[in-house]
Amino acid sequence: MAFSGKMVIGQSGGPTVVINQSLVGAVLAAREQRAITGVLGARHGIAGIMREDFVDLSAHDSATLERVAATPAAALGSVRLKPGREECASVFEVFRKHDVRYFFYIGGNDSAETAHIIAQMASEADYDFCTVHIPKTIDNDLRVTDHCPGFASAARFVALAFMGDDRDNAALPGIKINVVMGRHAGFLTAASALARQQSGDGPHLIYLPERAFEMSRFVADVRRVYEELGRCVVAVSEGVADADGQPILTTGERDSHGNVQLSGTGALGDFLARHIKESFAGGKVRVRADTFGYLQRSFPTIVSEVDAREAREVGAFAVQHAVAQGVPGSVAIRRLGNTPYASEYFITPLSSVARKTRSMRDEWIADAGNDVTAGWLEYLRPLVGPLPRLGRL
Amino acid sequence: MAFSGKMVIGQSGGPTVVINQSLVGAVLAAREQRAITGVLGARHGIAGIMREDFVDLSAHDSATLERVAATPAAALGSVRLKPGREECASVFEVFRKHDVRYFFYIGGNDSAETAHIIAQMASEADYDFCTVHIPKTIDNDLRVTDHCPGFASAARFVALAFMGDDRDNAALPGIKINVVMGRHAGFLTAASALARQQSGDGPHLIYLPERAFEMSRFVADVRRVYEELGRCVVAVSEGVADADGQPILTTGERDSHGNVQLSGTGALGDFLARHIKESFAGGKVRVRADTFGYLQRSFPTIVSEVDAREAREVGAFAVQHAVAQGVPGSVAIRRLGNTPYASEYFITPLSSVARKTRSMRDEWIADAGNDVTAGWLEYLRPLVGPLPRLGRL
Repeated sequence: MAFSGKMVIGQSGGPTVVINQSLVGAVLAAREQRAITGVLGARHGIAGIMREDFVDLSAHDSATLERVAATPAAALGSVRLKPGREECASVFEVFRKHDVRYFFYIGGNDSAETAHIIAQMASEADYDFCTVHIPKTIDNDLRVTDHCPGFASAARFVALAFMGDDRDNAALPGIKINVVMGRHAGFLTAASALARQQSGDGPHLIYLPERAFEMSRFVADVRRVYEELGRCVVAVSEGVADADGQPILTTGERDSHGNVQLSGTGALGDFLARHIKESFAGGKVRVRADTFGYLQRSFPTIVSEVDAREAREVGAFAVQHAVAQGVPGSVAIRRLGNTPYASEYFITPLSSVARKTRSMRDEWIADAGNDVTAGWLEYLRPLVGPLPRLGRL
Repeated sequence: MAFSGKMVIGQSGGPTVVINQSLVGAVLAAREQRAITGVLGARHGIAGIMREDFVDLSAHDSATLERVAATPAAALGSVRLKPGREECASVFEVFRKHDVRYFFYIGGNDSAETAHIIAQMASEADYDFCTVHIPKTIDNDLRVTDHCPGFASAARFVALAFMGDDRDNAALPGIKINVVMGRHAGFLTAASALARQQSGDGPHLIYLPERAFEMSRFVADVRRVYEELGRCVVAVSEGVADADGQPILTTGERDSHGNVQLSGTGALGDFLARHIKESFAGGKVRVRADTFGYLQRSFPTIVSEVDAREAREVGAFAVQHAVAQGVPGSVAIRRLGNTPYASEYFITPLSSVARKTRSMRDEWIADAGNDVTAGWLEYLRPLVGPLPRLGRL
């Protein structure tokens, strides 16, 4: 028997272009559930819940919701807050006060952890309550699921950016370093490989945080490619680190999770470009660096169709599961096939997704540590969808 | 009477996403001209001509050409070379050797200057020859023409990027500085204003190279917006300079035209972000900077329809004019109306486009020097085309 009461939904962490698909998927599914007596959106996630800052989501018409679904970045507002037990307790108190029986949190592994703590509190208090984590991250670093909603659209942006930038570099040859998001996992940087359509196309080198980054090796790799092709396009993850796990360069600033700030600065790209330039002492070589920055995660219209559909469906699935089963968990995606691509959803325990993340499989990284494998592209291509075929003379 | 012989076409300067539309427009138009006995593409512009490095463009089928037209960045290769009289003389020698009677150069004001010098040489030598400059630049800084092919697509990228980034900033509030291309002219940075759809939307401040940039004023502006809205999104041109015309920050490197390197580095954005952060001494405020970099000029699929069509048509018009009139010049666009948008093409003397550039009209810049006016948006909107309407809760 489904218990009945209000639901709260919130969004957390870095935005994606499809995070609102999940929100709208959940809201529309909730309207079909009698057990859900009211739909509240939390402004800025957990922070908004503690302030009782809610938006009534029962009132919006479907035209508005569809526009919201297609709009990048968390429409409810997001938050970077990893609450401790005390904060979770005050969230739980707000839920009791408002007779909230269902909580859906769209986010990454920290959000799964938050949901997990609150679920435990409800269980200890013998309060009829179900919380389901809805996965979201451009980093693709959640465990259990085949891939994460939000990733494929960001990957599409990265692939298109490299396609264009490689043609730019072919037109005006030189060495170009592009820094891509991804603190610990190289999935998004690895997506740059989709830009290759013909032999000689860039990116010619791909550096991921999963492998130790050695400056001397990097310089040697770039020089080798440059000598062969007269140009070189490089994809570097913002999270590359040396053999001791020390970031190659950081600004020293930390975010509210205690993580070193890697995004929102061009410092790593500039540092690597300067290093390459100095290695060509006396030689005239054009070296440039771009840092893709926040554009990767919030650029309107660059959306993977599979990603948009799945992001919507995981939102709906979370609500349907919560009402039907009443068991907390995190929605995960199981891939059923690639030709044609098909997937299904299932629930995995919150503890299996919370805290730890995952990174690129070894089999997806080339032995030399500066490229990806065909297996990686096989995994990635159906998610990103068809890319334009470039013309050449 | 049209004189008959081969034609050479080349591409020069920074790539755009529609520069190949102009190439294909010219090539297809040339196939309809009996006077043109052969169509040669110069690899990397003037540099390729001096090396006699040509591609035969009569051989490509239309499917290939259409794919090339839709592909960003100069398909023939580009060059950053402002040739002197000696180099122009050797170009002219190559033309005589190959019986080249028509020369089309797709580029900015430096390319118009090159075409101008060669046209004078042909005239002095009494050699039947016509050269037409085909305008191209994301900077929109050519004189005479209403606007430049390549600009509107880059402007579309900038507008979309700010639309997404503003939603990102609203979801995770803070101060965000985005550095946009444009060395002397603020057109592209000013295009960020198209991202605004509702009151309170960013960019909240826009700094153009047409107005002296004062750091104290900048800090005060940002703090005022931040105090009012709790966040602030800023568009800054890479070319902002102080009252003496000194760039705010440069890496000290110069390109082959002797210009200070502004693109391909995140240094200006990082510098401004640091400055803002220091002004909030003790206060916790999230300040980030992104530098859009080369993505603005070569991102596949982000294309203005008007821009793609006009870029194609100026290429065709150049060829038709050259054969029909035999008089050198530069193709320019005259706007006929905004509702519906309509334009026509005409020829302006090469000397009117060569060397000097133009910048934003005074009436398009707000008196306070940190924003644009409604008149600017009226000019810009029809070129960029309809943008997605964002959804809000």
